[in-house]
Amino acid sequence: MISFENDYAEGAHPAVLQHLFATNLVQQPGYGNDAYSEAAKEKIRNACHAPHADIRFVVGGTQTNALVIGTVLNPYEGVVAAETGHINVHEAGAVEYTGHKVLTIPQHEGKICARELEAYLEAFRADGTHEHMVFPGMVYISHPTEYGTLYTRGELTDISRVCRRFEIPLFLDGARLGYGLMSPGTDVDLPFLSEVCDVFYIGGTKVGALCGEAVVFPRGNAPRHFVTMVKQRGAMVAKGRLLGVQFDALFTDGLYFSISAHAIAMAQKLKAGFAAKGYPFLLDSPTNQQFVILNREQMERLGAQVKFSIWEPVDGERTAVRFATSWAPRGEDVDTLLALL
Amino acid sequence: MISFENDYAEGAHPAVLQHLFATNLVQQPGYGNDAYSEAAKEKIRNACHAPHADIRFVVGGTQTNALVIGTVLNPYEGVVAAETGHINVHEAGAVEYTGHKVLTIPQHEGKICARELEAYLEAFRADGTHEHMVFPGMVYISHPTEYGTLYTRGELTDISRVCRRFEIPLFLDGARLGYGLMSPGTDVDLPFLSEVCDVFYIGGTKVGALCGEAVVFPRGNAPRHFVTMVKQRGAMVAKGRLLGVQFDALFTDGLYFSISAHAIAMAQKLKAGFAAKGYPFLLDSPTNQQFVILNREQMERLGAQVKFSIWEPVDGERTAVRFATSWAPRGEDVDTLLALL
Amino acid sequence: MISFENDYAEGAHPAVLQHLFATNLVQQPGYGNDAYSEAAKEKIRNACHAPHADIRFVVGGTQTNALVIGTVLNPYEGVVAAETGHINVHEAGAVEYTGHKVLTIPQHEGKICARELEAYLEAFRADGTHEHMVFPGMVYISHPTEYGTLYTRGELTDISRVCRRFEIPLFLDGARLGYGLMSPGTDVDLPFLSEVCDVFYIGGTKVGALCGEAVVFPRGNAPRHFVTMVKQRGAMVAKGRLLGVQFDALFTDGLYFSISAHAIAMAQKLKAGFAAKGYPFLLDSPTNQQFVILNREQMERLGAQVKFSIWEPVDGERTAVRFATSWAPRGEDVDTLLALL
Amino acid sequence: MISFENDYAEGAHPAVLQHLFATNLVQQPGYGNDAYSEAAKEKIRNACHAPHADIRFVVGGTQTNALVIGTVLNPYEGVVAAETGHINVHEAGAVEYTGHKVLTIPQHEGKICARELEAYLEAFRADGTHEHMVFPGMVYISHPTEYGTLYTRGELTDISRVCRRFEIPLFLDGARLGYGLMSPGTDVDLPFLSEVCDVFYIGGTKVGALCGEAVVFPRGNAPRHFVTMVKQRGAMVAKGRLLGVQFDALFTDGLYFSISAHAIAMAQKLKAGFAAKGYPFLLDSPTNQQFVILNREQMERLGAQVKFSIWEPVDGERTAVRFATSWAPRGEDVDTLLALL
Repeated sequence: MISFENDYAEGAHPAVLQHLFATNLVQQPGYGNDAYSEAAKEKIRNACHAPHADIRFVVGGTQTNALVIGTVLNPYEGVVAAETGHINVHEAGAVEYTGHKVLTIPQHEGKICARELEAYLEAFRADGTHEHMVFPGMVYISHPTEYGTLYTRGELTDISRVCRRFEIPLFLDGARLGYGLMSPGTDVDLPFLSEVCDVFYIGGTKVGALCGEAVVFPRGNAPRHFVTMVKQRGAMVAKGRLLGVQFDALFTDGLYFSISAHAIAMAQKLKAGFAAKGYPFLLDSPTNQQFVILNREQMERLGAQVKFSIWEPVDGERTAVRFATSWAPRGEDVDTLLALL
Repeated sequence: MISFENDYAEGAHPAVLQHLFATNLVQQPGYGNDAYSEAAKEKIRNACHAPHADIRFVVGGTQTNALVIGTVLNPYEGVVAAETGHINVHEAGAVEYTGHKVLTIPQHEGKICARELEAYLEAFRADGTHEHMVFPGMVYISHPTEYGTLYTRGELTDISRVCRRFEIPLFLDGARLGYGLMSPGTDVDLPFLSEVCDVFYIGGTKVGALCGEAVVFPRGNAPRHFVTMVKQRGAMVAKGRLLGVQFDALFTDGLYFSISAHAIAMAQKLKAGFAAKGYPFLLDSPTNQQFVILNREQMERLGAQVKFSIWEPVDGERTAVRFATSWAPRGEDVDTLLALL
Repeated sequence: MISFENDYAEGAHPAVLQHLFATNLVQQPGYGNDAYSEAAKEKIRNACHAPHADIRFVVGGTQTNALVIGTVLNPYEGVVAAETGHINVHEAGAVEYTGHKVLTIPQHEGKICARELEAYLEAFRADGTHEHMVFPGMVYISHPTEYGTLYTRGELTDISRVCRRFEIPLFLDGARLGYGLMSPGTDVDLPFLSEVCDVFYIGGTKVGALCGEAVVFPRGNAPRHFVTMVKQRGAMVAKGRLLGVQFDALFTDGLYFSISAHAIAMAQKLKAGFAAKGYPFLLDSPTNQQFVILNREQMERLGAQVKFSIWEPVDGERTAVRFATSWAPRGEDVDTLLALL
Repeated sequence: MISFENDYAEGAHPAVLQHLFATNLVQQPGYGNDAYSEAAKEKIRNACHAPHADIRFVVGGTQTNALVIGTVLNPYEGVVAAETGHINVHEAGAVEYTGHKVLTIPQHEGKICARELEAYLEAFRADGTHEHMVFPGMVYISHPTEYGTLYTRGELTDISRVCRRFEIPLFLDGARLGYGLMSPGTDVDLPFLSEVCDVFYIGGTKVGALCGEAVVFPRGNAPRHFVTMVKQRGAMVAKGRLLGVQFDALFTDGLYFSISAHAIAMAQKLKAGFAAKGYPFLLDSPTNQQFVILNREQMERLGAQVKFSIWEPVDGERTAVRFATSWAPRGEDVDTLLALL
């Protein structure tokens, strides 16, 4: 049975594993102070054109979101996010566990809109009783979003401008960032993100690593004593080399980007195949997640031979399902799938 | 320069890495629901003679301590620990971050004493104002302790008996458990721990894995909806196979025990060598950490050629330093070190 | 200048003050163990027909909401509330500060609807990924709502039935409960609330007391060691008599009800007066808060002689404002106000 | 039966009650924005010679401690306190509930010593692994202490100097501050405290009020958006006048000081009486709490006619008990008690 169920079904890209293997016996300091972590940080700083960036590797996405949001916010603040934001729906209340509220605004195919954000912030500021309300203290966006969609450079510029007008940091969740950066037609790259964001992360887990996310504070603007809070919140890894070595591999010879390009190419082929057969889509995704609408009979027939994720019901008869590609070399699987349609 | 600085300076035992390599392309469900995690759990249940044990793999020790303590305690309870307990000193307040107090009692070479524990609990119960005090709701011990020392079966039985008399769960931090289990002369094994403890963990990070700790609730007594709290507290790994595969390797063909035995053998040789040269010890450690007292001149001379950890000052002139062994094949290094004495 | 700005502009009803005065020198135990608290609890149990109720007096509403929600919920749970629920908007994130999420569902003039609640809970239960989501663990409603509206006995029965089907406790915020109980035409009374709710509170601050809310767990179902958690969360009053004496007065000779009836009568007169002059209302409130829509000219003219609260903009030209009555004898003020229309 | 059980057994000083009575019908804004709170703050600023002080009234002591400590500390910091500090023992873990650790140092009759504090802070700073430890971020002292003892001006100057050297704020818990200020021979007054402390509170609950503590940030140095955090943590009172009116009375015509002087005079008389009869004391307390050592027979005989608090066992045969005086006019009771000896 072939599977497009998600982008974390296999282990790591072979080059990543290989680097773990090759460096295994070299003795290194713990807790992220190893030479591989240093090398990886420098490569990421270069890729971001952000020579002063503070960078920290942590294990997973929910951990990263809670850590960043919980340490950047002041105690009287909450984080503004789309209703569909991962932090608002699928992280088991990890943000609230840090004591902070997620303040929701509307979403449009998973994205927030600068104008609506501005209106929200203006309304808060205008509200005379705001002393009894949670202050908006950060804006969270994901790129690609939970629906695989992407912001344009113009949209991010607008959102960033609003954030700066209100002196609120902008945080970009890049759990699948590679797929966004290599999507055809995007005008967003790492140096641009380093300009418009105040903190973002470069996802490794879903882009070829065994685990690991690189948190980037592009202007050296990590919170004071961030390392101690990383420890306090259980996000410190004793053998920090595990993360450093992987990101060192991912940012050597453009591996992070070629992995992402491979997944995008497969997703495009899959998308074209579905479209050619007349299957409707939930929305037009330019990244590695494709949301196809199937009727009951199609669900049953395809489901017997291919694994995919149930996303959401569309109506009584039809369901949106997700097909995801990844670093894994499933080229033949795409052909097999398309032949089944 | 040779190093006995700690037991996490290298990567993973080759057999662990090899298993990651061999299983890398097999597609598996995420979040710990993979076949390797299942296999590893079953092997651990067998090793513990605890067929109904709930087991969960998490990444690191501080994370495990905060997760277990924070989810097992009731909100009005704190955890009792030795003053020198890792949770009380070197985890950046991770327990307090979960909202709970660490209630300290005296330590004796890193260990607590059943009699003193009992007196503490009796005094609390007797205290008429206890409604305004933090209730002792769990007892935390580490084995080996932070000083490398070990409890005997008799001592653990006594502590467990006190805990049960007061209906308080006993939690054993086994970050270095393997070294305790393979220490010559110990009468403590996994089936025994599964009887006397209510929860304990089998440390992987410091015993041959890249990362990972196996939390064992030996009688199927994990808190309700533990998985959701694992997610909420940022301790969920998307590619849970990373942990499952490693523990599958560690509990195949007794690797966890042979790794530990190797480290113990090296530590014994190192200990005998220091003793033969007349070096005093801070205390008599039967495990992989040896605490040797050096004077200023010895510190300087040895320090130029060997890495070790500064532990604590003994007096104005002398310092206790730690030499740690691990899975890593540093046999020649021990010879080199002893030749330097 | 006369004021209908809110229902906490004056001090306490004279009979409440008088009781404080009369009992001032009697020596009593602290922390809520005084005879007045005991007497007040017994009177409330009688009024509720709930002989086994656990009752605790605390100082204020936000404190009560955070205390009840934070101690009743399990760590993996959140509280379901209307989008307009006070806990979701105007309590500065006090619920999130306890580590729990507010899960919102739609509101209808401030009320939630049993059918929508049921659909929400069913959808959660059906969702295969619910392990990564916050579990709905309590339902919060306010009565009267933030818009002054009331649930009927039938509506509360339906909501309670849904809660019980899903084994989720129902919590009713009664900051202004008296005004709900004495509203003409209501079929809801304290014994009924004691049946359908799992916990509710009888607001004192806004119904004649200087401060104080009586939390009622009608079936003796307070969380274990609730008193310790009251202390832990800063909600314990050393001179607990302050609260006990006030509630003793409020539940002697029906004072709580006559205070409420007085405020309702005034509000009805005010409402009839506005209606007679053709002023529109934001909605039809049967309690002590009346939401009248004023145009710019009316705002300006009335605002020069009467204090009221700005509620929310209706359109570019018109604004909803709130007139609130209370225990205070402002009968003449109503006449004055109506004469101004 | 006469009682010296504690200093919160009666209600409020009559002048305080009288002021509540007199102002009851005046309409005022809520949430601490009333004219009485403003007047009281101004009087306190004058008494402190601190014209720029930020002042906030909250209800009780534990609430105040958790609020101040939780909002002043950075997330990676804990509060240093004597082992016997109220926050460490008798507040049900309220500080830990805010996520912060209490870091204990030795006590001497309830007091900490500047030299030991300095050594502790120096050791922390010297410790190479401090990134994994809780940072000392505030020093907490109580004055009078839990044992009724007092710091001298010289001792407080030394502690303050250490705090400033390490840039750590000094917080003084003044739950019984009046009794300290009016103790014969003390050289500590409010203007001095406003110089050496960064935040302190003037206790009302135990010095003549029904409830209420005045938190003073003497240099206008309250945390940003402190009011919102007061609300968030449930410490906001809707009828803030309740606190403002009481402190307005306490700081009119020196009432706070005359109340305290009265209690001190009674305590001195009681102390002299016990001493004259040869009763030993646990320690020499110059304030309103006297700790007398009774043997079993004395306990039984006295206990039949007088209420006092059991403090702590001294040896198998003898117990330290506490006699507390307060604002209440128990002059005759002292005579009665002394006649019983």
